[in-house]
Amino acid sequence: MSDSISSPVWELHPQLARDTVAIGDLPLSRVLLMNDANYPWLLLVPRRPGVIELIDLEEPDRAQLTSEICRVSHGLKAIAPCDKLNVAAIGNVVPQLHVHIVARRQIDFAWPKPVWGLLPPRAYDYEDLNRLIKVLHRALLV
Amino acid sequence: MSDSISSPVWELHPQLARDTVAIGDLPLSRVLLMNDANYPWLLLVPRRPGVIELIDLEEPDRAQLTSEICRVSHGLKAIAPCDKLNVAAIGNVVPQLHVHIVARRQIDFAWPKPVWGLLPPRAYDYEDLNRLIKVLHRALLV
Repeated sequence: MSDSISSPVWELHPQLARDTVAIGDLPLSRVLLMNDANYPWLLLVPRRPGVIELIDLEEPDRAQLTSEICRVSHGLKAIAPCDKLNVAAIGNVVPQLHVHIVARRQIDFAWPKPVWGLLPPRAYDYEDLNRLIKVLHRALLV
Repeated sequence: MSDSISSPVWELHPQLARDTVAIGDLPLSRVLLMNDANYPWLLLVPRRPGVIELIDLEEPDRAQLTSEICRVSHGLKAIAPCDKLNVAAIGNVVPQLHVHIVARRQIDFAWPKPVWGLLPPRAYDYEDLNRLIKVLHRALLV
């Protein structure tokens, strides 16, 4: 169990901090972009300390997370047209609850397999990343 | 797009019917057990025709699905103690919306990888399967 999980104050798990860039905060969740140009891939991380499973969330937070998953799914689809959204809370490696929302294309490198653990991440080009952060911020948070 | 997706009447996608056994119906979803003894692995399939993505569900159905995911997660954990639940709506192969709920152990064959597409399914022994169906029915639906 990592310190960030057992602490009474929420902080982002260090591995999520390493693998992502922050887009901003919704009422419950921090929205993160995986730094992997293979797929448009977002994470929602509820800012609640000690939460590992979806069922660890109190009922109002679960409802809010469902609403934020839908908001982010619509926003991601609008800026990254896709054939399928993949939505998942797995957490076998990083226990802190985080929900993946991945925009999948039938022409992407992993299709039809799930993305987890399949290909090494391909970091975004610096300018592409900054452009994408701005587009995502406008689409998901404004 | 399969007939079962485009039909105005809900019917279970034939591949889900082949790969699973039915445990019963919650108010929104059919509860299915994957016939794969590698992991305790359930599916929830909302009985709504034409629904592919979580965001295709009307808001009251989304709330109900969230509630059913939690109910089934608690019930599965109670009968199959585990180190982590994996909850996911992927659907790259079978488009009909279905939510996986998998009870993972650190000693299972795939840990820490996700289960999808990793190992060939290992069908349950007939008697084990019938026993498990009864236990799951009591834990999840009564």
